[in-house]
Amino acid sequence: MATWAEAADVPVVNEETVRVELGARSYDVVVGVDVLDTLGSRLVALGFQGRCGLVTSDRVGALYRRRVERSLALAGFTPIVVEIPDGEEHKSLATLERVLDALLRAGIERRTPLVALGGGVIGDLTGFAAATLLRGIPVVQVPTTLLAQVDAAIGGKTAVDHAIGKNLVGAFHQPSLVLADVGVLGTLPRRELVAGLAEVVKYGVIGDATLFASLEADPATALTVDPFAFVPMVAACARQKAAVVAADEREERGDRAILNFGHTVGHALETVTGYGRFLHGEAVAIGMVAAARVSEAIGVCDATTVTRVRGLLGRLGLPVDLPVDVPADALGTAMKADKKSVAGQIQFVTVERVGRAKLVSLAAQEIVDRL
Amino acid sequence: MATWAEAADVPVVNEETVRVELGARSYDVVVGVDVLDTLGSRLVALGFQGRCGLVTSDRVGALYRRRVERSLALAGFTPIVVEIPDGEEHKSLATLERVLDALLRAGIERRTPLVALGGGVIGDLTGFAAATLLRGIPVVQVPTTLLAQVDAAIGGKTAVDHAIGKNLVGAFHQPSLVLADVGVLGTLPRRELVAGLAEVVKYGVIGDATLFASLEADPATALTVDPFAFVPMVAACARQKAAVVAADEREERGDRAILNFGHTVGHALETVTGYGRFLHGEAVAIGMVAAARVSEAIGVCDATTVTRVRGLLGRLGLPVDLPVDVPADALGTAMKADKKSVAGQIQFVTVERVGRAKLVSLAAQEIVDRL
Repeated sequence: MATWAEAADVPVVNEETVRVELGARSYDVVVGVDVLDTLGSRLVALGFQGRCGLVTSDRVGALYRRRVERSLALAGFTPIVVEIPDGEEHKSLATLERVLDALLRAGIERRTPLVALGGGVIGDLTGFAAATLLRGIPVVQVPTTLLAQVDAAIGGKTAVDHAIGKNLVGAFHQPSLVLADVGVLGTLPRRELVAGLAEVVKYGVIGDATLFASLEADPATALTVDPFAFVPMVAACARQKAAVVAADEREERGDRAILNFGHTVGHALETVTGYGRFLHGEAVAIGMVAAARVSEAIGVCDATTVTRVRGLLGRLGLPVDLPVDVPADALGTAMKADKKSVAGQIQFVTVERVGRAKLVSLAAQEIVDRL
Repeated sequence: MATWAEAADVPVVNEETVRVELGARSYDVVVGVDVLDTLGSRLVALGFQGRCGLVTSDRVGALYRRRVERSLALAGFTPIVVEIPDGEEHKSLATLERVLDALLRAGIERRTPLVALGGGVIGDLTGFAAATLLRGIPVVQVPTTLLAQVDAAIGGKTAVDHAIGKNLVGAFHQPSLVLADVGVLGTLPRRELVAGLAEVVKYGVIGDATLFASLEADPATALTVDPFAFVPMVAACARQKAAVVAADEREERGDRAILNFGHTVGHALETVTGYGRFLHGEAVAIGMVAAARVSEAIGVCDATTVTRVRGLLGRLGLPVDLPVDVPADALGTAMKADKKSVAGQIQFVTVERVGRAKLVSLAAQEIVDRL
């Protein structure tokens, strides 16, 4: 059996760079093994020097803070380190204020870069801190979860949560660099790794039939975190995210909406189950199967496509069916309240065939009726 | 004696529109008498409908909230009103959180515009709320102080203060419209009106010799708040601010630095005296005379220019001399800590002659030695 990288017909390398083209705000996404140790020299190459901020969580900090600090010190940086507790419940205005306070008291300046070392919570919160400190300072994203590497760290969406919903207070603030070290994914809890793979599958479904086919041919490699197979896989996702972001930086045109495949039902499921039961990727996996079913029901795709999507997600160990105790009506109510719904209509992402998505405007009830 | 408007050789009209050219983010600054009552219809003309947010202070709300609400209601809007206490001490993250909370709980959406009705504190805080709500919603600035009409409301700089300094947490977020009703300036406390005139004089010194000469010829009209004289005066300032913002939206090139004439010493004076003693415009008046003196001392202008700047500010009732109890060294220390100082050097705005400014790089001590 071919390894994933061979099947995908890409060379096995330990580093790939994807450029996010946004004019003066363009930047690189560097995907590689042990690239964590190159952070300091890359900051120097970007023209930074002297001090930098480093925001991380207690969990990630315990694992990788020393390595990052060593790389920064070797390049002549004196980091101001802020550690915050791990977990989505700390992605709040209160934690943001703590981070802003610590960095301002340490004398952060307009040209001081801020490094976000962690998963989506750290990336979103640190990105938002950078967006607002002195009306905007540079941020470098160093994502340490698969989900953050293929999605959250790229594209400049930053935010904190509010009591009435997730990501309701934030800003668009592009990073100066994204440094995705797939080597750190080995320490990720297996459930989180698998949840991250749901987003990888999503990129396959909406725009990369080769990526999807490679995972289908060899799901085991994705589960063993072979770093050399992961570099081309994460880079393929980053390339697609970069293209979508370049075409629609601030979600003004709808190009970016295609990334929401599986997310309409997925978000609703998270809302209804209170965020404690499913990881984001798990909810999205269920949402993708639901979206494929809706696509088939309205005649956009055939049954084979639904079978392939459901089959791959299942083999990766992801949940694929709506739990029997969640009423479809509750999902419909949550969909209507989504901040992306406009006048009751939802821009629903359907799949035409693996590798090709299509936006369809549907009312929440039209989706619910087909789940 | 000619009225101010006649002396300036501009027609007496009750409305002028200044365009801030920023590509897709361009907008109008409408300066006029009783334009407050046109807010609702202007929002409709911008494509808004349904709901809107309205943030104001208790003091301004008591005076103008009913008029604004009537205009909004006549145009079919249902405003979500948030009143916050008056005063710079409320320009904080805590107040911001209160505003965000009230608007999110009321169900604000991405296309819901937020109206800022008040002075600089309301404009800066509401602008920042709009910048961060759902990653950015539209904001309309309705400035009710002279200072906000000629300066703060135009250009998209938004912020709240932090314990260690003013405006340290914020964002650039351009408004969709600035509606400057000079009719409301009649209810402004005289001391605030006079402080606002300091910024008008600043525009004269740095780029509009005609404006400066008109004020020199007839300072009394500026002090009586003849609304028909104020429309061309405020519009002249808005035009200059608009040009500077269009050339350097995010203060990246230095074009915008020219607006800091009088502000290096002025800010230092505010810092040293703890913000309670001088209004911003008063500190800037003292700072402008100091900047003119430094300009003369380093050979950039002649003594006549210093005399004219000092003379006009004095006749408008503004303070012009550094208080004897503030040591020059303390000002120097404050200047060095300013967020605009880079590696100890200050981009100091000097005056060549009335109507023409020039940036000169100086160390704080070089300024202090010439005060």
